[in-house]
Amino acid sequence: MFQNPKGMRDFSPDEMILRNSVFRQIESVFVKYGFDPIETPVLEYWETLKGKYGQEADSHLLYHFKDRWGETELALRYDLTVPLARYMSSRRMPLPFKRHHIGRVWRHENPQRGRYREFWQCDADIVGSDKPEADAEIISLMSAVMDSFKFPDTVVKINDRRLLKGIFENGIGIAQNKILTVYREIDKLDKLGLKQVTQNLKQVLPVSQVNQIADILQLHGDLEDVLSGVEASFGELDGTSYLREMFDRLEKGVMARLDLSLVRGLDYYTGPIFEINIREPKLGSLGGGGRYDELIARYGGPDLPAVGSSIGVERLIDAGLAIGIFKLDQKTLTDIFIAAMDGAADYAISIAHKLRKSFNVQTDLMQRNLKKQLDYADKKGIEFVIIVGEKEKKAKTAVLVEKRTGKRHEIKLIGLEAFLKKLVK
Amino acid sequence: MFQNPKGMRDFSPDEMILRNSVFRQIESVFVKYGFDPIETPVLEYWETLKGKYGQEADSHLLYHFKDRWGETELALRYDLTVPLARYMSSRRMPLPFKRHHIGRVWRHENPQRGRYREFWQCDADIVGSDKPEADAEIISLMSAVMDSFKFPDTVVKINDRRLLKGIFENGIGIAQNKILTVYREIDKLDKLGLKQVTQNLKQVLPVSQVNQIADILQLHGDLEDVLSGVEASFGELDGTSYLREMFDRLEKGVMARLDLSLVRGLDYYTGPIFEINIREPKLGSLGGGGRYDELIARYGGPDLPAVGSSIGVERLIDAGLAIGIFKLDQKTLTDIFIAAMDGAADYAISIAHKLRKSFNVQTDLMQRNLKKQLDYADKKGIEFVIIVGEKEKKAKTAVLVEKRTGKRHEIKLIGLEAFLKKLVK
Repeated sequence: MFQNPKGMRDFSPDEMILRNSVFRQIESVFVKYGFDPIETPVLEYWETLKGKYGQEADSHLLYHFKDRWGETELALRYDLTVPLARYMSSRRMPLPFKRHHIGRVWRHENPQRGRYREFWQCDADIVGSDKPEADAEIISLMSAVMDSFKFPDTVVKINDRRLLKGIFENGIGIAQNKILTVYREIDKLDKLGLKQVTQNLKQVLPVSQVNQIADILQLHGDLEDVLSGVEASFGELDGTSYLREMFDRLEKGVMARLDLSLVRGLDYYTGPIFEINIREPKLGSLGGGGRYDELIARYGGPDLPAVGSSIGVERLIDAGLAIGIFKLDQKTLTDIFIAAMDGAADYAISIAHKLRKSFNVQTDLMQRNLKKQLDYADKKGIEFVIIVGEKEKKAKTAVLVEKRTGKRHEIKLIGLEAFLKKLVK
Repeated sequence: MFQNPKGMRDFSPDEMILRNSVFRQIESVFVKYGFDPIETPVLEYWETLKGKYGQEADSHLLYHFKDRWGETELALRYDLTVPLARYMSSRRMPLPFKRHHIGRVWRHENPQRGRYREFWQCDADIVGSDKPEADAEIISLMSAVMDSFKFPDTVVKINDRRLLKGIFENGIGIAQNKILTVYREIDKLDKLGLKQVTQNLKQVLPVSQVNQIADILQLHGDLEDVLSGVEASFGELDGTSYLREMFDRLEKGVMARLDLSLVRGLDYYTGPIFEINIREPKLGSLGGGGRYDELIARYGGPDLPAVGSSIGVERLIDAGLAIGIFKLDQKTLTDIFIAAMDGAADYAISIAHKLRKSFNVQTDLMQRNLKKQLDYADKKGIEFVIIVGEKEKKAKTAVLVEKRTGKRHEIKLIGLEAFLKKLVK
């Protein structure tokens, strides 16, 4: 039959009511920190996207196609960062440019729980600053988003691409042609565990190097503790003073941990990288980001440093539902249903018209009898029902029923709106 | 260089601030009338879309492509109505199902002013009612959206596919194989004018029929005036009693006119059709819709009648900008910029952290001197600037500058939030 495409979802009103409230809350935190909205097309030229996300993305995950008019090759956007880089490359504006962008992206993954081919990201990025204040603000912002939902035990894992390079390439001496394989294996640590990862690494590296890596991967925690550990082994490393300054600029209350096992998949990062995690439920990271100082220049734009983050809202919602922060219990935004008996349909419409100044109101649209109208209001979970018939129409009154308590009121039309304002939240 | 695809736009913060406020206002009117949100994927199977919009759409306007994994043929949605029909076909829910849907659609048009390949629609539909109350509510709703923006002189043009059939096919006797061509010519009336349209019609129809059509096309205005005109020529016609009942159920103040020249392009309409117009500027219709009682059953779903409308938000925004209802004068949502002198950066961050409970706040992220920080705030049009240095940090105070008036206040930190609440709108 006719279905939604595999891995792409329909959302019903109860789901949308929850999702919209989540999106708007994230947006409001973004705006509190000074990130203004932009929008870009869903489609980009394939030229714009290819070669930016790594080989797997190009060969397996990106949707791209020749348009049937033979004009060009198009692709569905894969994230919101590359479109931002393309956007920046042709514009001049006051810096830093702080934008947020909430929208969908597409990846041809194998659909499974929490993983879809069409999904939403909530991004905030700062373009134009190469200073640790910018990275710190992005991390504080992600933490503030999580706090706004009252997620308990949010931890931000932090690492730095320069530190990784200093340790793995210069320190341990892993060959250039093996380093991406090594990072890819390390990236599986959460999923596979240390034992399996070291086993995998032994396929490509000598045992002595694997043992050094295994030691490093267990280093995480307080910034100075971890840094002094690696500095003892490898001497002074690139990026450490920047990281110290960045940690220093974090807002109070941000739970930030240096974690040398964090690598993140995307190719374009150049400095600090980070991920948001919660302890329970264990769903993997709920968001992440990092610094990408070279991406915008690749689009022919000025050499603009940038740092940003993306919140994976699908997992965030799953996590919130699992721990009871979010609920799927609201089927409609309608406050009031006005049921009309014979001869009072026009009266119901005129009352609805008035009440819509302040409330969300439905009337019968199917010429049904009173019982069926009340059934409908019931099934939709509408909390207030107004009943009118010819008698009420003549007397300019209405009968109001509070569904939760069963209370009934007979009210003059002239006082109805004021009366309802006290009841409807 | 790297650009956005032809006919698809980037939106900068000032544009997005306006667009979001327009979208949210439309949404709030939709919700006031009891239309809850749903969402569907941007992609649909090509099977789902093809054959639903007419031949030109299939052959020229729809984006569709074989995915490169050889799994299936996909298409970008062309409107939000067919996705709704597909959505309804596999679900059982209380009727009527009233949903709104605000989202983008794609058509491979030749880009020109006000016409894009990617654009947004704002739809509201009622599924499950075959009664004129439903059509009337959709028309009242469209009118309410226009009124909420204070558009002057909104007129809803109304016609009915059954009436068109009764007049053109049964009455005038136009052959089945010519009727679509005739409607297509009539659809150009606004663009070409009556003279050109009758000339075009003479290529395909005998002059006597063209003269009858020309008479009909000039009939528009008050429902009863127009109906009595056509009933005098063609006797009693299908759909007239339904139209009378529908007009009777419109909210007071809706400016509705029967216009026999309205045909609307889409193939799936079966009953009343309508369009929203404003007198100035002449941009064509700002929205429209109609009844489509047979579409949902085509997806194998139950035989559900439906009626709905779509607001063309691109034209609505253009119109609002042209007559000064809308303005593109807000560059940022940020209320306050906190500028820090040497040694007070941490103090600025801690003040920002506190003020973000109530306001949208930025601090310096580039370690710039005071002048450059103030320049930035100025260029962004941020209305309130707070300046802090080591002196203020020590004294726990801040200097607040109101940009509009130039007023300066020295304020104790403890009273800053309350003070600002009186100033910031």
